[in-house]
Amino acid sequence: MTEPAPIRGLWCATLTPLGRDGGVDHARLAALVRELLAKGVAGIVPFGTTGEGPSFSVAERCEGLDALLAAGIAPDRLLAATGCAALSDTVALTRHALKTGCPRCLILPPFFWKNLTDEAVFRYYSMLIDTVGDTRLRVYLYHIPQLSAVPIRPEVVARLAAAYPGIIAGVKDSGGDFEHTAGLLRRVPQLSVLVGHESHLPRLMRAGGAGTICGIANLFPDLIAALLKPDVPPDDETRVRMFLDIVLRYPFVPAFKAIRAAQTGDPAWLAPRPPLLPLAADEQTTLLAALHSAGFGIVPERSQ
Amino acid sequence: MTEPAPIRGLWCATLTPLGRDGGVDHARLAALVRELLAKGVAGIVPFGTTGEGPSFSVAERCEGLDALLAAGIAPDRLLAATGCAALSDTVALTRHALKTGCPRCLILPPFFWKNLTDEAVFRYYSMLIDTVGDTRLRVYLYHIPQLSAVPIRPEVVARLAAAYPGIIAGVKDSGGDFEHTAGLLRRVPQLSVLVGHESHLPRLMRAGGAGTICGIANLFPDLIAALLKPDVPPDDETRVRMFLDIVLRYPFVPAFKAIRAAQTGDPAWLAPRPPLLPLAADEQTTLLAALHSAGFGIVPERSQ
Repeated sequence: MTEPAPIRGLWCATLTPLGRDGGVDHARLAALVRELLAKGVAGIVPFGTTGEGPSFSVAERCEGLDALLAAGIAPDRLLAATGCAALSDTVALTRHALKTGCPRCLILPPFFWKNLTDEAVFRYYSMLIDTVGDTRLRVYLYHIPQLSAVPIRPEVVARLAAAYPGIIAGVKDSGGDFEHTAGLLRRVPQLSVLVGHESHLPRLMRAGGAGTICGIANLFPDLIAALLKPDVPPDDETRVRMFLDIVLRYPFVPAFKAIRAAQTGDPAWLAPRPPLLPLAADEQTTLLAALHSAGFGIVPERSQ
Repeated sequence: MTEPAPIRGLWCATLTPLGRDGGVDHARLAALVRELLAKGVAGIVPFGTTGEGPSFSVAERCEGLDALLAAGIAPDRLLAATGCAALSDTVALTRHALKTGCPRCLILPPFFWKNLTDEAVFRYYSMLIDTVGDTRLRVYLYHIPQLSAVPIRPEVVARLAAAYPGIIAGVKDSGGDFEHTAGLLRRVPQLSVLVGHESHLPRLMRAGGAGTICGIANLFPDLIAALLKPDVPPDDETRVRMFLDIVLRYPFVPAFKAIRAAQTGDPAWLAPRPPLLPLAADEQTTLLAALHSAGFGIVPERSQ
């Protein structure tokens, strides 16, 4: 295994398609990943938040990763999301990723307990890295307090980066607060700092950030790729904000899945994993009409 | 398997002792359970919140339940906590409990996603029950929004109770809001309504509630048992409040473990599972001194 490249540019947190039995549809997932890579996405994160990772068991997530590799997706295009509520599960998933040649892992903090101190968050990641015990590991810390309910403060990121130089490789900031992201760029300039909130990308790139791991890339990768170029026209940024304004009227994963279903003409995409619910038929219609009015034409792939 | 008795009276959400390797110490757990049953506790919930359930893998929780049964603890003294973030994990744990003769399960809502609608919570439990597909199952819904971040509103409890009569057997209300509990007693009088917040017990019992599943019972079962009797003297209620006022200055699981360590003279009890941290030595001293001053003498068992 050669030193894995740092995560940079446009990475997609892929949606997870389900079969009729509610399990992961490996063939459809591999087809989505191939399509995204062909469209210029740099790499993908299976079973992240957009991929409903915490709604799948460790075994389902291991099998999902294995299936992508078996389908010929190169390990250097993958960042494995391996964070679970239980440390033992996170250790198992992280070891599995390493074993299959994917040393880069995006890792949520443990998300059941609340009001954790900085010391507790530091020691959790520290124990994880020590227990996995593999110098090839490259950790991307995942800050998404609106869902994990456990923030990873810049002080903790800096302390971990100092304690595990090289192993702590980056941080994905999905908190949606650019001041927090700017603080990370100042505190840990040696790390890949990535955002989840797509409209922050132009500011991030001007400030020396690495890129994005995002959900919209499942649907409109070109729209996001445009934000990574130097001198982004203000119009491109506005369009991403407009897209989000429409989509975020709904729970975002079911909305993304409804758009993907419309794009592909394949209703199998509609179903999220419980506890998320699919958009109702009238919600799908309203969402797609609003996107159409805003100029986000959704033309099924097959008829293009 | 005969019809399992409804959960009533004093049930203890047992602490989970750890071995030096950080795994569950099965022998110490069985000894605690035997001790509590001998002291008059009606039954126990392993791997609940006080038992740090979500910090253990499905395999660790299955093995923990198996070890208790192998140690001779009767299934009718057990309520299995089986709720996980992933439906597939919750199904696996619930099926395992049923297979081992423990049809009564205390089940958290899925706790990663936030802002779930009532419909989403209803459909999650509905899909769980349908997937497990065993009429012997007895579900105790677990409302603890301060940690799960997903409330189970009385309307949802009532809807589930109507859809699955007999299978929905009770609800544990650990929200700490007695108005919410009173609402449950009105809406679903046919269910066992239990509280987690010990000082609400006298009011609950006067209003027709079933009892408690609580953490203090690990340490002072007599203190809580007194609150279940008719005509509780106000002093008994005050003493429980006083105990909580002292203990809740600290994260409650590490504090409970520190008290258990002092009671048994066994420092192995101190360690919680990450991300929780053990109380520091000075915190242990301060906690134990405050309890002593308040009349909660902690005398190691062995020297009694």
